[in-house]
Amino acid sequence: MTDELETYLATTADRRLASYLEFLRIPSISGQPEYAGACREAAEWVAGQLTSMGVEHVEVAETGGHPVVYGDWLHAPGAPTVIVYGHYDVQPVDPIELWETAPFEPFVKGDRVIGRGSSDDKGQIHIHLRATEAILATRGALPVNLRFVFEGEEESSSVHLDAWLEANRERLTADLAVISDSGFFDGNRPAITVGLRGICSVQVDVRTTAVDLHSGSFGGAVQNPANALAQIIAALKGPDGRIRVPGFYDDVVALTETDRAAFAALPFDEDEYRTALGLPALVGEAGYSTLERRGSRPTLDVNGIWGGFQGAGSKTIIPAHAHAKISCRLVVDQEPSTIFELLRAFVLEVAPPGCSVEVQDLGGGRPSLTAIDHPATEAAARALEATFGAAPLYIREGGSIPVCASFETILGLPVVLLGFTPPDDNAHAPNESMSLPNHETAIRTVASYWDELARLPR
Amino acid sequence: MTDELETYLATTADRRLASYLEFLRIPSISGQPEYAGACREAAEWVAGQLTSMGVEHVEVAETGGHPVVYGDWLHAPGAPTVIVYGHYDVQPVDPIELWETAPFEPFVKGDRVIGRGSSDDKGQIHIHLRATEAILATRGALPVNLRFVFEGEEESSSVHLDAWLEANRERLTADLAVISDSGFFDGNRPAITVGLRGICSVQVDVRTTAVDLHSGSFGGAVQNPANALAQIIAALKGPDGRIRVPGFYDDVVALTETDRAAFAALPFDEDEYRTALGLPALVGEAGYSTLERRGSRPTLDVNGIWGGFQGAGSKTIIPAHAHAKISCRLVVDQEPSTIFELLRAFVLEVAPPGCSVEVQDLGGGRPSLTAIDHPATEAAARALEATFGAAPLYIREGGSIPVCASFETILGLPVVLLGFTPPDDNAHAPNESMSLPNHETAIRTVASYWDELARLPR
Repeated sequence: MTDELETYLATTADRRLASYLEFLRIPSISGQPEYAGACREAAEWVAGQLTSMGVEHVEVAETGGHPVVYGDWLHAPGAPTVIVYGHYDVQPVDPIELWETAPFEPFVKGDRVIGRGSSDDKGQIHIHLRATEAILATRGALPVNLRFVFEGEEESSSVHLDAWLEANRERLTADLAVISDSGFFDGNRPAITVGLRGICSVQVDVRTTAVDLHSGSFGGAVQNPANALAQIIAALKGPDGRIRVPGFYDDVVALTETDRAAFAALPFDEDEYRTALGLPALVGEAGYSTLERRGSRPTLDVNGIWGGFQGAGSKTIIPAHAHAKISCRLVVDQEPSTIFELLRAFVLEVAPPGCSVEVQDLGGGRPSLTAIDHPATEAAARALEATFGAAPLYIREGGSIPVCASFETILGLPVVLLGFTPPDDNAHAPNESMSLPNHETAIRTVASYWDELARLPR
Repeated sequence: MTDELETYLATTADRRLASYLEFLRIPSISGQPEYAGACREAAEWVAGQLTSMGVEHVEVAETGGHPVVYGDWLHAPGAPTVIVYGHYDVQPVDPIELWETAPFEPFVKGDRVIGRGSSDDKGQIHIHLRATEAILATRGALPVNLRFVFEGEEESSSVHLDAWLEANRERLTADLAVISDSGFFDGNRPAITVGLRGICSVQVDVRTTAVDLHSGSFGGAVQNPANALAQIIAALKGPDGRIRVPGFYDDVVALTETDRAAFAALPFDEDEYRTALGLPALVGEAGYSTLERRGSRPTLDVNGIWGGFQGAGSKTIIPAHAHAKISCRLVVDQEPSTIFELLRAFVLEVAPPGCSVEVQDLGGGRPSLTAIDHPATEAAARALEATFGAAPLYIREGGSIPVCASFETILGLPVVLLGFTPPDDNAHAPNESMSLPNHETAIRTVASYWDELARLPR
């Protein structure tokens, strides 16, 4: 990194923090229809930033859902072209009562910025915006060609992104996709994520009568949708942690001895992990370690469940309906649409009589696994080590970034997952935060990475 | 019934409807703390009515919870003394969106009054108030001695009533308790309820971490409270509809051949019942008919379940906690406190590892079974036949009126359950209603019943 860039960054820190907080104040929750306007506002905000720093062809592109923000800077002939991906949408804020302050009134506490989206993923978009701005402001040019693709539906299964990528395949020529939507493994040691789980999300709806029934007058004579739902959910997983949906594991690539050795080599203490979470015990699929369970094995979790009376005291009813949102994390080579069909069929098969059961598809994303020795991955490792002062770990993350598979499949690009948040960032939970020093260092990492990529033999 | 009474009732119908609606407008939900003021307001309203018609010793008696309204009229020497019981509290109103209008803005639609409490049980208290008023206004005296005991916690397991009855046992001398909190069996044919189920209500709370976790980063490695709760609930009942809690059936009095013949003799078409409810099938304990299941067998039903994300779309979390309200309907001779301990122990036994589970006692009530050939029951039958024009059916109802067992046990009184609502009254559900013609006829039934009781040999 040049002294000039460092001087520029040092003298613009206050303005940079202000723009970060401004971005976080927009409540761009993609999964809740009432925030559609806010999602558009966030897209416009990002587009405005890109335009003002000299990025070209900036547009807020319609997708049928929340827009994609596109922009490019293509004046580095002979250098690689990189698609930079991030998402400006965020998770819902429930349970709101556990936040220290309003989720969309971000504030600095110690060395952290607290607010919805601070790490996942507005914080990381902001890192890219400010890195690009700093390089253009100090050098007048970037060392590589960049195409920014910032979407607004990542937290809603990226419903429209694939179609948009398909439709724009011709103009999205590139050599590499860099996705900044991941984090570190342990403490503040940098990491590059080489594996991601996919996802298949469903909603199960169980219904009986038009209205709730008196549990005295009808109890024992009719099906109870909440009992039925519990029965269905309980049937999905065995006491050994194995998912009981027939065919579920058919396409799962088994761990090799090398894979298992790599997991075992990571700095990880199961007991410390358990204690930090405040859990009496860790549980999961028999025969696998905690890291293997979350990095390389598929899962099935209830994300939400509801039906009947939830207030104080008691209400003696049989609810008319009960519902659950359930998602499976998938691993290579499970296909979300196949898993949906298997899951749906099994739910209907195990559903008890006396009720109607529906399974809705809430979206899915493919799993992904990338190579550690790709030159672009190695270049990222050098940039991280130069700026964070430590070589990165290579991790297989339990989360899902469906777009990773989209860039691989639709655009045929190698993907590097370059993320900057330590694991205690509370992504998706109350009091989501990002380390401000990391935010600052990551801007230098990105600048350094573009220089590293420009130096690679073509 | 005298012509004078009939004339009085005919000329005061409008005023009577107005006072009925006025009573229904008070949102006296006993189970939700924010309505405590409304419960007291309802108690004061009833006390005011009793005082104005000439009932004596009227008081709004403190219980530690919602008050009991007491009043008596004891100027019929030599005639029996009857305790009249009803409850001025009502069920919560969820799901509010299914009501045709606001639950506490009652209105007349066709020949029905729609509003929370219209049948259960304000409507039936109102019948007694207006019957007493009419007799006193026309004759200046009642044929029997009456003690009114109207409580405000019936929908919250009558938490404080037993203690109040114990404390007032000396002054509550009587020959009979008449409880008006039940309904008809079929169509508009009158019925006397001779059996009631008891209840045992619990809340199960499953907790893991302090905050929700990202289902990608943690899924597969930690227990999911909603999955665990489903597992617990599913373990409580078998596919044969039998409750699996060890010892649960130990005190259940088995049906005799005579009991089964009585059930079989009731006018009931299972297919019609199923169709009217809009159900694909009726389900329940193997080996019993629908009427036997709801009238003579214990049950276990989830009344409400919740945990995690309930909004539109998806949210990829593992909820930090999940909860269910569960109640068992009990039959003679099951004891609620014994069932609570058995249920609690079994829930803790079947709870999966990796989470903490608590079982809260939300209250209970004993089951009850009374004699068809008691003279007071026979007198009620004569009064019903004289006013409704048909002999009553005798039914074993699935619901619970815990206070029934309290009058039997604490005061040592025989109990007659005299209720007036057809089975389509939507008690505990949206659009609760009462037939206005029944409301009117029932006032005549009550007056006639007091005359019948006064005529019994002492």
